[in-house]
Amino acid sequence: MAYSEMAKENGSSNSKPTRDTKGKIITCKAAVAYGPGEPFVVEEILVHPPQKFEVRVKILYTSICHTDLSAWRGENESQRAYPRILGHEASGIVESVGEGVSEVEEGDTVVPIFNGECGECCYCKCEKSNMCERYGVNPMKKVMEGDGRSRFSTVDGKPIFHFLNTSTFSEYTVVDSACVVKFRHSDHTLTTKNLTLLSCGVSTGVGAAWNCANVHSGSSVAVFGLGAVGLAVAEGARARGASRIIGVDINPDKFIIAKAMGVTDFINPKDEEKPLYERIRKMTDGGVDYSFECTGNVDVLRGAFLSAHAGWGLTVILGIHASPSLLPIHPMELFDGRSIIGSVFGGFKGKSQLPHFATQCGNGVMKLDNFITHELPIEEIDKAFDLLITGKSLRCLLHF
Amino acid sequence: MAYSEMAKENGSSNSKPTRDTKGKIITCKAAVAYGPGEPFVVEEILVHPPQKFEVRVKILYTSICHTDLSAWRGENESQRAYPRILGHEASGIVESVGEGVSEVEEGDTVVPIFNGECGECCYCKCEKSNMCERYGVNPMKKVMEGDGRSRFSTVDGKPIFHFLNTSTFSEYTVVDSACVVKFRHSDHTLTTKNLTLLSCGVSTGVGAAWNCANVHSGSSVAVFGLGAVGLAVAEGARARGASRIIGVDINPDKFIIAKAMGVTDFINPKDEEKPLYERIRKMTDGGVDYSFECTGNVDVLRGAFLSAHAGWGLTVILGIHASPSLLPIHPMELFDGRSIIGSVFGGFKGKSQLPHFATQCGNGVMKLDNFITHELPIEEIDKAFDLLITGKSLRCLLHF
Repeated sequence: MAYSEMAKENGSSNSKPTRDTKGKIITCKAAVAYGPGEPFVVEEILVHPPQKFEVRVKILYTSICHTDLSAWRGENESQRAYPRILGHEASGIVESVGEGVSEVEEGDTVVPIFNGECGECCYCKCEKSNMCERYGVNPMKKVMEGDGRSRFSTVDGKPIFHFLNTSTFSEYTVVDSACVVKFRHSDHTLTTKNLTLLSCGVSTGVGAAWNCANVHSGSSVAVFGLGAVGLAVAEGARARGASRIIGVDINPDKFIIAKAMGVTDFINPKDEEKPLYERIRKMTDGGVDYSFECTGNVDVLRGAFLSAHAGWGLTVILGIHASPSLLPIHPMELFDGRSIIGSVFGGFKGKSQLPHFATQCGNGVMKLDNFITHELPIEEIDKAFDLLITGKSLRCLLHF
Repeated sequence: MAYSEMAKENGSSNSKPTRDTKGKIITCKAAVAYGPGEPFVVEEILVHPPQKFEVRVKILYTSICHTDLSAWRGENESQRAYPRILGHEASGIVESVGEGVSEVEEGDTVVPIFNGECGECCYCKCEKSNMCERYGVNPMKKVMEGDGRSRFSTVDGKPIFHFLNTSTFSEYTVVDSACVVKFRHSDHTLTTKNLTLLSCGVSTGVGAAWNCANVHSGSSVAVFGLGAVGLAVAEGARARGASRIIGVDINPDKFIIAKAMGVTDFINPKDEEKPLYERIRKMTDGGVDYSFECTGNVDVLRGAFLSAHAGWGLTVILGIHASPSLLPIHPMELFDGRSIIGSVFGGFKGKSQLPHFATQCGNGVMKLDNFITHELPIEEIDKAFDLLITGKSLRCLLHF
């Protein structure tokens, strides 16, 4: 039976989460990507009920991150799949759960996570890793893990692909229970809007500073690229007591907001004649303790590496490097005692650790309000992409 | 005054360490490199007295490591300097000390270290690093740090260059006091021959396993290249309780001695059709916890990296990579949670930490006897190089 026929049979066309929708197909609004770089089509789609170990979530807020931008543009050919529902940073309410799901139930406040946590694989059981064998980040995956099918379709029954375990540009989405984190209101004081930020950008940046680099009090830090992730790194470093946080960006408008996030010094590479790392080494008596690369540019990556102090400096890569380049480092340069690591989702194990992070944020350890700069209805998603592309927004929340 | 004239004036031609030589030029035997790959000339040379903060050491034993081989061949053009006294792994007795030297005195048993420790720079004061601002590894340096001159000359007064802060292919050498470590006989039970091993190879390998990787009990390890350094890694991993130690070498003769050093499995890449990392992943349920690259080959380096387990696997580079290649890793591959670091002198701070390491070795934590496979007089240094090149020796001690 085609999805459209099932929808007809179920008679469901209700976008509100009521008991009536449980087990039925929901017809609701979504922003669908039909081709690389093409304007989104905001239209009604069908959302199938959650299957075994799956959860259907009513999305309250979703926002846009550079990974969505890259996928929308189809930058990596092998990852292109259309039609597709993008989006991976969101917050919402559980509408219903599939068989075997016990950790969340209807009405729970949740955020979906693109980097899931099954709790059972060798990575989930290892304290050193936040990878997950089945539900980790996989931009190639476009269907559900369980049965290899999609839970989305157009109203005339054509399947619509999933994205990054989440697909949040839809009023309803279906995710594996490993990819949804429950937040009890008794555990934190964050608004649902701010919870959205923990779904990707803020957790990615703060976690890189806390979990991956383990930034220490009194240390020096350089952040290359002051988008939401880079600023979250800075805010995380500030929360850890870093005494000097150097922000690097070619957009000088970022400096005002960056200052509020703890950035103490600002460098615009366009103003510099000499290599940036020379300037940073001079400013910091030989280099920073920690540098963070949040741009995905390989030259910036080398600059970040050389800006770290010999002997102990650590560079953390957060940026997505789509080009086929190798690490711009000679093997012998590692003998100078600088090291480099990658950071995915800030090293957070989503289900185990995000609730405590929400508590910390609620307690004022982190200031989240500055990250949400805009809010628009889902119908204006193209405008929200423009705001991100032109560097005018940090996070633009979309609501349904 | 030329060195030769000073020698004549001092009337010194005594190769025994007596009070008579203090403050005088010593005429003694050395193996001098006159050009890239040319046979060594074992001849009499002049060794100037130690200046401020310098120590003159009578070398009892010296051995040969691949860095000597590389320098002798002149593989890196910018490091070529002739005539030169190579050699950096040795043990000896302090003959005399220059002004201001208080930590060693005449008659002390010492080993020279190519990676010095001044105790005062930012690296020496940092527990994370074993670099040293003034006395660290510097293959370009060919004269003494203090006055920019050499302490060696030919008998007719032509200067002979220093090498790696040590120059041990000479009956007497002059080193900075930052580059000499004293061993009290009350602190350890090692023979002077075995102390030689702590001067470079064994410390480099064991330290990589202990200080850099921090190999844990029950872990899995792969060692690429089973020369003395690679075998020292294996022996260090064995001492830490690693349960599986996979040795990789194209020379199957290495397996016998490797077994005695704790290697549990042996792979000859020549016998493998598929990439080596696939075999190792299959043997270890996804990859080893720690891999060590001890060959200086960039393809081996990639194999070592991919043999480590995703999520937490660590690759330590010990091999010298002379080619201009970049790290054979795409930035995004770091997102799989594998990491890579360089290791110099096994992360040991020589002056502070080697004496305790000698105590541990004396207590049987490490078995050193298997590393010394040959012993020859200095006159047969070319033969000793051959033994190393053909993979027949681990360490061939040279005596004067």
